[in-house]
Amino acid sequence: MRTVAIIVAGGSGTRFGAEMPKQFLELGGLPILMRTIEAFEENGDGSFDVIVALPQGQMELWQQLCREYGFEVPHRIVPGGETRWHSVKNALDSIVDITDVDVISVHDGVRPLAGPDLINRVLEAARRDGAAIPVVMLNDSVRQVDGEASHALDRSSLRAVQTPQAFDARLLMEAYRQKFDPTFTDDASVVERYGHSVILVEGDPKNLKITRPMDLALAEYLLNPDA
Amino acid sequence: MRTVAIIVAGGSGTRFGAEMPKQFLELGGLPILMRTIEAFEENGDGSFDVIVALPQGQMELWQQLCREYGFEVPHRIVPGGETRWHSVKNALDSIVDITDVDVISVHDGVRPLAGPDLINRVLEAARRDGAAIPVVMLNDSVRQVDGEASHALDRSSLRAVQTPQAFDARLLMEAYRQKFDPTFTDDASVVERYGHSVILVEGDPKNLKITRPMDLALAEYLLNPDA
Repeated sequence: MRTVAIIVAGGSGTRFGAEMPKQFLELGGLPILMRTIEAFEENGDGSFDVIVALPQGQMELWQQLCREYGFEVPHRIVPGGETRWHSVKNALDSIVDITDVDVISVHDGVRPLAGPDLINRVLEAARRDGAAIPVVMLNDSVRQVDGEASHALDRSSLRAVQTPQAFDARLLMEAYRQKFDPTFTDDASVVERYGHSVILVEGDPKNLKITRPMDLALAEYLLNPDA
Repeated sequence: MRTVAIIVAGGSGTRFGAEMPKQFLELGGLPILMRTIEAFEENGDGSFDVIVALPQGQMELWQQLCREYGFEVPHRIVPGGETRWHSVKNALDSIVDITDVDVISVHDGVRPLAGPDLINRVLEAARRDGAAIPVVMLNDSVRQVDGEASHALDRSSLRAVQTPQAFDARLLMEAYRQKFDPTFTDDASVVERYGHSVILVEGDPKNLKITRPMDLALAEYLLNPDA
């Protein structure tokens, strides 16, 4: 059986203030997106089909970067959509035949530090229960705002959601046949709306989402803590 | 009018795996707690009375570190308690006379990067409305766990809570006369239980709480981003 990894590289990087889209910024000498793709290449059984959803306007630059860096990890590119949902939908529509695909995982292009243990944990849970996502405890106290007022939430009941999220291939395909709804925040929410529950597995605090310069600095440290 | 800053330096640093309590680890060549105290010294009007709640077992080491580093920012030490609430209570009990104190702020000893703009924003709001805390948006999607199940929360309604939290001096004194309750998570929750609402002001994503080695690495970067 094959496993598909959809990597969503949608952001324009405006929060970074850099001209370069954030997923192309260098981390340890290699563009972030290349590191993210490598995380799925180096996953032991080596049976991932990697599909990258990339904004149309970034495709030429990506080809150029792959040549410059001599990046040869096999992957397919599909055009990114208006939202994350549309990007994943485009990637799913590009899969012609899922008869030999057991699980599809969906991952943020700017989470380059997902390790093999984490990825395998999520995949195994998805094979067993159909739908699994990695979560971690929150570091700060959290409040919920309600108009002018706010109230404290019980932090011990809260979890921050990471990716990769992984799903039985047929289930994810079916769930993405639902009409788009702007309240879909991630793939888990699409699958839940379709009526299937989602299992939480242990995430990894080091599995950062790089959205600000300070995240990139931290990722550099995590990549090479003793440098 | 004087302003009191209570700095709670309670942690034993077990999550760090270091022998040294985490608030004594060096950040940019100076123990974290010294940087935190300096943030309140360098706050413009210079009228803070700084009270540090420190575990009894760390007092000798702290005196020794102050000599070693030639640290001369005026501050008073009170013994830390069993919980954060008890530490703050000890600090409040050590204030003999509040007739000339307008606002008391309470701050984590391991948040050394609180800047003057943030501190002033919180103080001003507390002077105006009696109770104010800094909050920031969350980076990740969040779920709430409910037994075996879990559900997504609307991230746009959530805020991560930081310190310093600041309060009208009389209000905070009165609120801490309530009996201790283990559900008190921070000073805001104590004041709310007493019946006073709390204003949210804009926090600062750089105002990190240093609880893990990766937080310290990020703080080093934020202290000197161009190094």
